[in-house]
Amino acid sequence: MGGEDVKLLGLWASPFPMRVSISLNLKGIKYTSSEESLEAKSELLLKSNPVYKKIPVLIHKDRPLCESLIIVQYIDDVWAASGQSILPADPYDRAIHRFWAKYFDEQIIATTGAIIRMRVKTEEEIAAAIAQMKTVLEQLEEVFEKCSKGKSFFGGDSIQYLDIALGSFWSWIKVIELLIGSKILEEKKIPLLVRWGEKFCAHDAVKDSMQDVEKLLEYAKRRQTFFENAPPAQ
Amino acid sequence: MGGEDVKLLGLWASPFPMRVSISLNLKGIKYTSSEESLEAKSELLLKSNPVYKKIPVLIHKDRPLCESLIIVQYIDDVWAASGQSILPADPYDRAIHRFWAKYFDEQIIATTGAIIRMRVKTEEEIAAAIAQMKTVLEQLEEVFEKCSKGKSFFGGDSIQYLDIALGSFWSWIKVIELLIGSKILEEKKIPLLVRWGEKFCAHDAVKDSMQDVEKLLEYAKRRQTFFENAPPAQ
Repeated sequence: MGGEDVKLLGLWASPFPMRVSISLNLKGIKYTSSEESLEAKSELLLKSNPVYKKIPVLIHKDRPLCESLIIVQYIDDVWAASGQSILPADPYDRAIHRFWAKYFDEQIIATTGAIIRMRVKTEEEIAAAIAQMKTVLEQLEEVFEKCSKGKSFFGGDSIQYLDIALGSFWSWIKVIELLIGSKILEEKKIPLLVRWGEKFCAHDAVKDSMQDVEKLLEYAKRRQTFFENAPPAQ
Repeated sequence: MGGEDVKLLGLWASPFPMRVSISLNLKGIKYTSSEESLEAKSELLLKSNPVYKKIPVLIHKDRPLCESLIIVQYIDDVWAASGQSILPADPYDRAIHRFWAKYFDEQIIATTGAIIRMRVKTEEEIAAAIAQMKTVLEQLEEVFEKCSKGKSFFGGDSIQYLDIALGSFWSWIKVIELLIGSKILEEKKIPLLVRWGEKFCAHDAVKDSMQDVEKLLEYAKRRQTFFENAPPAQ
C-alpha cells in the first residue's frame, strides 16, 4: 500500500517523539505527524507498535519503527547523506554519546514518571528524587565539558545524539521544578548545562518542537490529578 | 601510558562480556582478558566504569568502554574494515536488531536475575517467570523467521547483533531450566530457535566463550545460596 513516505505518530507533551522530530529537522526531511491520545490509542499505533503500544512510531515507506533512540539512529543511517550527522563520526565519541543517553534515560525517565504518577509524594521521597536528578545533571555537566570542547553542544558545533536525548526533557525538568517548588537547573552547580539548554531550545531544529513550559505544567497537573484519582493498580 | 591495545575485563559466567568476546572474534581482533570477581572488584574496573562498576569493560588504547551492546557497536564501528559487519547493512534491519536486542534485555535480564537472587520463589512466581520467558522466546521465533530468511542466523548467513544479544544467554536459559525443573526451550514451540541455538553455540567465534552448562549450573547454585543467606537489602 502506498501513502505518505514519512509519518510520525507522536504526542506534543512527550519528550520521546520530540527526539524524532528534531532528528528529521536536522536532516531536512519533510514528514507528516499525527497526534495520539493516551486515552484512546489509534488502530495505527496499536498495529505499528504491538509490543509496547507506545509513541513515538515513525512510519517510513509503510514500515513502522519504534523506540525513540532507535528511530534517531535509523534516521541517521537511512538519510546519511542529508543534513548533518547525528551520531558523532568518531567511534569512541559515538560510544560516549550512547552510554550517557542510555544512562540519562535509565535515571531520569523513572524519576519524572514517578513524580507525575504521584508515586513520589512525601517530603523525603521528593527530596530523594530531586537529589537524584541533580546528581545526574552534575555528571552530565562534566560530560558536557569533555564532549563540547568549548563549543555550544555535546556534539561540538552541532546538535548530536546526546544533545537530543537530554534536550528533549528540558521543558519537563522545568515543569518538575515548578511542580515540586525546588530549583534543579542551578546556574551555580551546572552553569554549562544551563547555558547549553538555552541554546538547545532556541535551535532552529528544536524550537518548534519544544513544549511551552506553562502549557506543559497544566498538562502535568492534569496527569497528576488523573493518577491521584485512578484506582490502585491490581 | 602505553600498555595492551585491547583488554577485556570480564567474568566467565556472565553473558555480557561474552557479547564483547564474540564480537572481537568475529572481527579477528586479538585481545587479552582479565577475570573479575564479584566479591572483590579490581581497581581497574572501578576506575574504568565508575558509573555502574560492572563488567564488561573493554579498554582500547587506554580508553574504557562500558555497557555490552554499546561495546559491540563500538567494535563494529572501529574495526569496520575487519572481518564481517555486526550490525546489518540495511538501516531498517539495523533498527529491527536493535529493537529486539533491547526488548530481550529488558525482559530477560530482570527475570533471570530475580531467579538467581531468589526473589522468585513460590510456585506461582516461578510459573509466571517461566511463562514470561516463553512468551519472549516465542516472539523471537517469529522475528527469527522474518530476519533469517531461511538461513542459519538472525543475520542470515552470519552471526550479527541480535544473534549475539540473545545467544549470550543460551547457557543461562538452559541453567534456568535445570534450576526450576521445567522446559523452556521446547522444540515444538520454538523449533527454529532451538536449531539456531545449537548452530550459534557451535560457531567458531562463540564456542570457546560459551559456558559449559554443568559448570554454570554449579555457579548459579552457589549464587542462589549466597543470596538466600544474604541479609535482606535495606
